[in-house]
Amino acid sequence: MKNQADRLLFVVDHAGTVLFAMEGAFAAIAGNLDFFGVMVVSFATALGGGVLRDVLIGATPPRAIRDWRYAAEAFTTGGAVFILHQFAQQIPSQLLMILDAAGLALFAVAGTQKALDYGIPPFIAILMGTVTGVGGGAIRDILLMRIPIILYTDIYATAALVGSAVMVLARRLGLHPTLAAVLGGVVCFALRVCSVWWHWNLPKASAP
Amino acid sequence: MKNQADRLLFVVDHAGTVLFAMEGAFAAIAGNLDFFGVMVVSFATALGGGVLRDVLIGATPPRAIRDWRYAAEAFTTGGAVFILHQFAQQIPSQLLMILDAAGLALFAVAGTQKALDYGIPPFIAILMGTVTGVGGGAIRDILLMRIPIILYTDIYATAALVGSAVMVLARRLGLHPTLAAVLGGVVCFALRVCSVWWHWNLPKASAP
Amino acid sequence: MKNQADRLLFVVDHAGTVLFAMEGAFAAIAGNLDFFGVMVVSFATALGGGVLRDVLIGATPPRAIRDWRYAAEAFTTGGAVFILHQFAQQIPSQLLMILDAAGLALFAVAGTQKALDYGIPPFIAILMGTVTGVGGGAIRDILLMRIPIILYTDIYATAALVGSAVMVLARRLGLHPTLAAVLGGVVCFALRVCSVWWHWNLPKASAP
Repeated sequence: MKNQADRLLFVVDHAGTVLFAMEGAFAAIAGNLDFFGVMVVSFATALGGGVLRDVLIGATPPRAIRDWRYAAEAFTTGGAVFILHQFAQQIPSQLLMILDAAGLALFAVAGTQKALDYGIPPFIAILMGTVTGVGGGAIRDILLMRIPIILYTDIYATAALVGSAVMVLARRLGLHPTLAAVLGGVVCFALRVCSVWWHWNLPKASAP
Repeated sequence: MKNQADRLLFVVDHAGTVLFAMEGAFAAIAGNLDFFGVMVVSFATALGGGVLRDVLIGATPPRAIRDWRYAAEAFTTGGAVFILHQFAQQIPSQLLMILDAAGLALFAVAGTQKALDYGIPPFIAILMGTVTGVGGGAIRDILLMRIPIILYTDIYATAALVGSAVMVLARRLGLHPTLAAVLGGVVCFALRVCSVWWHWNLPKASAP
Repeated sequence: MKNQADRLLFVVDHAGTVLFAMEGAFAAIAGNLDFFGVMVVSFATALGGGVLRDVLIGATPPRAIRDWRYAAEAFTTGGAVFILHQFAQQIPSQLLMILDAAGLALFAVAGTQKALDYGIPPFIAILMGTVTGVGGGAIRDILLMRIPIILYTDIYATAALVGSAVMVLARRLGLHPTLAAVLGGVVCFALRVCSVWWHWNLPKASAP
C-alpha cells in the first residue's frame, strides 16, 4: 500500500463489489438458478471483470483470489439478496440504475489505475478499465446464455471507456492522479446516467 | 515431487482425467459434434477445471499444458469413446453417475490441495477445489450453448464445495493431510451419490 | 527480437490480425451488434486466440495487451468495416475464404513457434498453434451465442492442427525453423482450401 490513492482504490473496489454482486444475484434469481447458482453469478458479476483484468495484465493470482474478503463480500451480498429477495425486488429500478452507474465508474477507474500501475501502455490501460467495469456483466450474460447486453445496446461499456480515457488523458495533462481518477469516474457516471435518461444508443451498421 | 501426498495427487489427477474425458465425449457425441469437436470437448471437460484453477492461482503454464500426458489421456479417451460409441452407450447410467461422483471427489480434493500448496487462503482454496471439480463441466456446457447445469439443479458443485471445506477443516484440526484429503473426498462422493438417490436439490428464490 | 524468424513472426502476426478483425466485424454486423459490439468482436476474433495461447503458456501479459499496436490494428480494421460495410459486403465470399485460410495458416504457425519458444512440449505446442488459429473464432461464436462452428463442421481446426504438426515434425527432422514454418503454413492453407472446394468433413459418431 502506497497511500491515499491506494486507500481510495481499496474503498472503491469494495463498494463496487457489493453493488455488482447484488445485480448478479437479481439476474440469477430471475434466471431461476438455485442457491449455488446465485452465489456463482454474484461472484462472477462482482469479481469477474477484475479477475479477467488481473489475468490479462499478469497480476496473478488475481486480487479476488489472493484476498478472501472480496469473495466473502460477494457471497454475503448474494446470500442476502437470495433471502431478502421479496423485499429486494421492491427497490426502484431507477435507484438500481444509478447505483450500477456508480459501480461501473468505480470499477473503470480502479481498473485503469491498476493497469497503469502494472506498466500496461495507456491505450491498453483504458481497455483494461473498461474490461474491469463490464467484464463481470458479460460473464454473467454468458453464464445465463445471453448475448452480452453491452455488445448490442445502451451506452454502458462506452461510458466506462470514455471515463477511463478521460482519466488517462487528465494524468497526461499533469493532473494529480487522484483528481484524474475522480474526473474520469464522474464522466463515466454522468455519461451512463444521461444515456439512460435520454435513451442514447450507439449506431449500428446493419443496412435497412 | 515431495512424496506420498504428491503421488496420491498424481494418481487421482489421472483417474479423474479419464473419467471426465469420457463424459465430455458422450456429451459431444450427443450434441452432434464431429471428431474434432469430440476431442475438444473431451479435453475441455477433463482438463478445463484444472487449467482454470491453475490460471487463477498463478500456476502457469497450467499442469495440463506443461505435461503432455494429460492431453494425450484426454484425447485417447475421447477417441476411444468416439470409436466404441455404440458399446459405450450401453454403460448403465447409474454406473456413470457413480464414476462421475468419484471423479468429482478426486478433482475437488486435488484442486484444494494444489491451491493450498500455492499459498492461496483456505477459504479461496475451497473455491478452487470446487472450480477444479466443476469447471470442466461448466466449460463443456458453455461450448454446447447450455446454461451450466451446476447453476440450477442438483447437489453437484455443492458436494465439491462441502468436500473441499471438510478437507480444509480437517487439516486445521490437525489431521494428517493425506487423511484430510481422503475424508474430504469421501464426504463429497457420499453427498453427491445420496443427493442423486434421494433427489435432493438446493432451494430457489424465485417466488411462486 | 532475435532476427529473421522473429521478423517473420512479426509480419505474420499483423497480417493475420487485420484479416481476422475483418471477419469478426462482418459477423458482429450480421449479428446486429452496435458500434461498440463490432469493436469488441473484431478485437476478440483477431486477438482472442493469441491472448488465450499466451495466458495458457504463461507469457503474461499477453502480447496483445503489452503492445498497443495489435489492439489499434484490430479496432481500425473493425471501424473501417463498420463504416464501409455496404462496400465490404461486396467482397466475393471465395476471396474471403482464401484470406481466412491464409490468416489461419499464419496464426497456427506463429502460435506453434511461440509455444516452442516458451519451452512447451512439442505435442502441446501443436495444440497451442491450433488454439491461436481457431480460438478467436470460437470466442466470437460464444459471444454471439452460437456453438463454435469449428466443433461440428468443416476441416478448419483440423487444418490448423495438421499444419502445426507438420511444422513441429519438420523441425524434428532437421529442417531450418523458417522453412519448417513455411511448410506447416502451406499445408494448413492447402488443406483448408481443398476441404472447402471438395466439401470435406470430419466423421461424426452419432448413430443413425
